[in-house]
Amino acid sequence: MTRTPTIAEALGARIHAFGPSHLTPKARLRARILMLDTVAVTLAGAGMDCVEMLCAVPGIADAPGPCTLIGRGARVAMLDAALVNGTAAHALDYDDFSSVFGGHQSAPILPALFALAEAEGYSGAAVTTAYAVGVETEIRIARAVHFHHYDKGWHPTATLGTFGAAAACAHLMGLSAAQIATALALAVSQSAGVKANFGTMTKPFHVGQCARAGLLAALLARQGFTANHAAFEHPQGFLEVFNGAGNYDATRIFANWAAPLELEDDGIAIKPYPCCGSAHAAIRAALELRAQTGLDPAKIAKITVLVHPRRLPHTDNPWPKTELQAKFSVQYLVARALLDGAIKLTHFSEAAIAQEAVQALLGRSEARPHPEMGDHSVSQWAAEVIVEMQTGARLAHRIDDLMADGGAVPPTTADMRDKFMDCAAAVGPADWASALFTALDALDTAPALGPVVAMMARPA
Amino acid sequence: MTRTPTIAEALGARIHAFGPSHLTPKARLRARILMLDTVAVTLAGAGMDCVEMLCAVPGIADAPGPCTLIGRGARVAMLDAALVNGTAAHALDYDDFSSVFGGHQSAPILPALFALAEAEGYSGAAVTTAYAVGVETEIRIARAVHFHHYDKGWHPTATLGTFGAAAACAHLMGLSAAQIATALALAVSQSAGVKANFGTMTKPFHVGQCARAGLLAALLARQGFTANHAAFEHPQGFLEVFNGAGNYDATRIFANWAAPLELEDDGIAIKPYPCCGSAHAAIRAALELRAQTGLDPAKIAKITVLVHPRRLPHTDNPWPKTELQAKFSVQYLVARALLDGAIKLTHFSEAAIAQEAVQALLGRSEARPHPEMGDHSVSQWAAEVIVEMQTGARLAHRIDDLMADGGAVPPTTADMRDKFMDCAAAVGPADWASALFTALDALDTAPALGPVVAMMARPA
Repeated sequence: MTRTPTIAEALGARIHAFGPSHLTPKARLRARILMLDTVAVTLAGAGMDCVEMLCAVPGIADAPGPCTLIGRGARVAMLDAALVNGTAAHALDYDDFSSVFGGHQSAPILPALFALAEAEGYSGAAVTTAYAVGVETEIRIARAVHFHHYDKGWHPTATLGTFGAAAACAHLMGLSAAQIATALALAVSQSAGVKANFGTMTKPFHVGQCARAGLLAALLARQGFTANHAAFEHPQGFLEVFNGAGNYDATRIFANWAAPLELEDDGIAIKPYPCCGSAHAAIRAALELRAQTGLDPAKIAKITVLVHPRRLPHTDNPWPKTELQAKFSVQYLVARALLDGAIKLTHFSEAAIAQEAVQALLGRSEARPHPEMGDHSVSQWAAEVIVEMQTGARLAHRIDDLMADGGAVPPTTADMRDKFMDCAAAVGPADWASALFTALDALDTAPALGPVVAMMARPA
Repeated sequence: MTRTPTIAEALGARIHAFGPSHLTPKARLRARILMLDTVAVTLAGAGMDCVEMLCAVPGIADAPGPCTLIGRGARVAMLDAALVNGTAAHALDYDDFSSVFGGHQSAPILPALFALAEAEGYSGAAVTTAYAVGVETEIRIARAVHFHHYDKGWHPTATLGTFGAAAACAHLMGLSAAQIATALALAVSQSAGVKANFGTMTKPFHVGQCARAGLLAALLARQGFTANHAAFEHPQGFLEVFNGAGNYDATRIFANWAAPLELEDDGIAIKPYPCCGSAHAAIRAALELRAQTGLDPAKIAKITVLVHPRRLPHTDNPWPKTELQAKFSVQYLVARALLDGAIKLTHFSEAAIAQEAVQALLGRSEARPHPEMGDHSVSQWAAEVIVEMQTGARLAHRIDDLMADGGAVPPTTADMRDKFMDCAAAVGPADWASALFTALDALDTAPALGPVVAMMARPA
C-alpha cells in the first residue's frame, strides 16, 4: 500500500513477521514457567462456583466438540473452551501478572490458544511463539494507554487481553498481515469490562469472555469478515473512545517492539501463595523465619506482623471465618506459614480456618503498620514478622518488596512443581499431576499440543 | 433493604413490577408493528455475507438446539440463535430506530427474546411485555447518557442494547428484582462496540453480540452468578467509564419511567425503503409525484433532485455500480422510484442497476443542494424532485422532514405487508410469507411463541 499503514495494519505486519527466532532463551524460560503456572491455576479454579454456574447455562459447553475443559473433562467447541477455561484461569485470582500491563497477561491468551491448538493440531513450539506475540501485543498497547486506562476503571486484563488473544490466535492460524489487522479491529468492538465488577464472579468471567472474543475475532477474520483497519486511531475508535484525547501515546506501541520482548520484562511475576498479594511479603518473612530458626509453633507467645501501611486496611482481619476473609487476613496467613511452613489451597476451607492450632496462634497475633515504612517509602511491598517465644527469645525477619515471584529471579522448578501439585490436587491424583507437569515442562518441544491439553481434563 | 437502592436495583424493581397493564393500546400497536418489521428485515438479512461468515465459524450455530435461525432453518442453541439472528436483523441497516435512542431499539432485544421464548415456551403476550420493558430500559438509559455517548463514538444500539436485551430476557424469565439488577450489572461488563467499525460487517455483528450478551447476562443471573449492583454509578462503573463526570444525568433514567412508555414516543420509526435514510425524502417525493401525475417515465427529459445540503455528500452518486453504491445514490433511488413506483430489495443487484431504462434516466439526472434549505434549517430531512417531460411540462413535488415512517402516523397494515413480503421473498414463497405475516400480526395472542418463531425458518 502507498498510504501510511494504520495502527492495526502496522501491528498486523509485525505480528505476521514474528517467529521463533524472536524468542531469546530468557523468553523461552519465561513462557514455559508462565504456561505451567496458568495451567496450574486453571486446574485449581475449574471447580469454582463461577465456572460451575457458567457451565450450567444452556448452550454453554453442552455440545460436544474437540476441545478439553481443563480440570473438568468434557470436550466442547473451541469458543466454549476458551470462555470456560479463561474464566477458570482467573477464578482464584492466582494467575500471573505484569506490572506494566496492570493486569494478568496470560489468562486471556492461553485458554484461547490451547483450544485452537487442540482443535486444529498446532505444535507446542507454534503455541509458544503465538503466546509470546500475544503478550507483546497486549502489553505494547498497555504502554500506549496506561495508567490512565487502568485508573479510569477499565479492567486491562479484559479490555487489552482481547487484543492479546486475537493477535496470538491469528498468528497461530497463520493469517496474513491484513487478516491480523482485521482481527485486531474486530477485537476493538469486543473489548469490554469495568473494574466496578471486581470482587464478584463477573471479574473472572471478563477473562473468559475476552479469551473467547479474541479467538472469535481471529476466526471471523479468517472467514473474510470486514472491520475498519483504522479502528484504533479513528476519532470514534479505541484510543479516543476508551481513553480520550491527551490520555494515550500510540507511538509507544511500536517503540522498541519486541526488543526486548515484553515477556522478558522483570515486571512479570507469578503468585507463590493463593491469597492477597499485599500479604505476600509477610508470608515470606514468616516462612523464612521458620526455616532459619526451626522454631516450634506450639511454643510461640506472641506474633507481631508489621506491614507497609498501604497494605494493612484490606489485610487486617484478626478473626477470619470464610475463605475470602482468610485470603485477606495477614494474621491468618502468617500464623499458617509459621504452623505449616507453606500456604496451600486447602488452608482456605472453613474447617481449616477453624483448626485449634491456628486459632490459638490467632489469639496471640497482632498486625500493625511498620513504623519505618512511610506512606511514600519505596518499600511498598515490604513486611516484618516478629515472634516472641515462651522462652522469652525474640525472633524477627524482614522482607523488602515482595509482591510475587518472578522478576529478575525466576522460580525454581521445585517451586513451580510445589504450586502445580497443590493446584492439581483439586482435580486428580498425584501421578497424573506429575505426568502433566512433566509434559508441560517440555511443552515447547511437543509436536502437537492437543494430547497435552487433553491430559488437562479431570482423570477418569 | 435499608440503604438507598443502586441504579441497577432501582431498575430491577421497576422491571420486575412491569406487567401487561402498562401497555396502552398505542404501545401494543407499536410493539406489533416493530416486531413485524424486525422479523421482515431479519429474513431479508439472513443470507447476507456477514451472517454466512458468522455461521461458518466452527462452534457458532453448528450444534443442534431448540432455537430457529431466522430465514436459514437450522435449529441451534439459544445463545447462538441470539447472536446470528441479531446480526441478521441489522445486516441491511433496514431495521427500526429511535431518535431518542440514537440507534436501533428492536434488533438487540427481539432476537434474544425469540430464542428464549422458543427454548422455554413463553407466550406471545409475555414476549410483547418483555419487549416493551426492554425498550423502556435501554432508551431510559440512553436519555441519561446521550448525546455525549453517541457523539463520543459509542454505538448505542450495541452498548445500550445490551441493557435492553438483559432487561427483556430477565423479565421474560420471571427473575426477581435482585436477579434483574445482577443481570444489568453483568451487562455493564459486556457492553461494547465503537462507531469506528461502521460501514463494515462488524456493525451488524455488534448487534448480534449484544443480543447474545444480554441473554447471557440474564441466564447467568438466574444461575446465581454475582455482579456489583452499583456497576452503573460506581466510580469505575458504566456512567463514569463510558461517559465520564459531567457527561451524564442518571436521574433521567427514572424521571417519568414508563409514563408514557418509550415505545409510545413519536421518535420511533421504521424504514420504508432498504437504503440510506438520507435519501428517503427524495424517494417519497418521487413516488408521490409519480402517483399524483401518472407521468410516463419513458418520456422524462430531465430529473433534478434538490436535497438538504447535509444529506448530499454521502448520497451524490450519479453512476452507482455496486449494491452499496446504489443504496447511497439519490439519483438511482429517485430514478427507480419514478420508473417502478417502489423501492424494493431486488433493485440493488448489479443486474438491476445495469438495466437500460434506469441507466437512461441516470443520464438525465442531476442532484444539487436545495437553494432554500440552509445548513441550519429545520428541514434536515427534506427534499424536492423536479421532473421536466419531453413535452416541456415541468412537474415538481417537495417532502419536508421524512427520515422514515412512524412517529405520529403509523404505517398501514398494507404498508407493513408490502415491506414484509418484499423482505420475505429472499427466503421463501409468498404463501409461506403471507401465513407468517398473519401469525405475526396476531403475535400478542399466541399462547406459545415457539411455533411462530419456527415458521420464520426457511421453508423446506
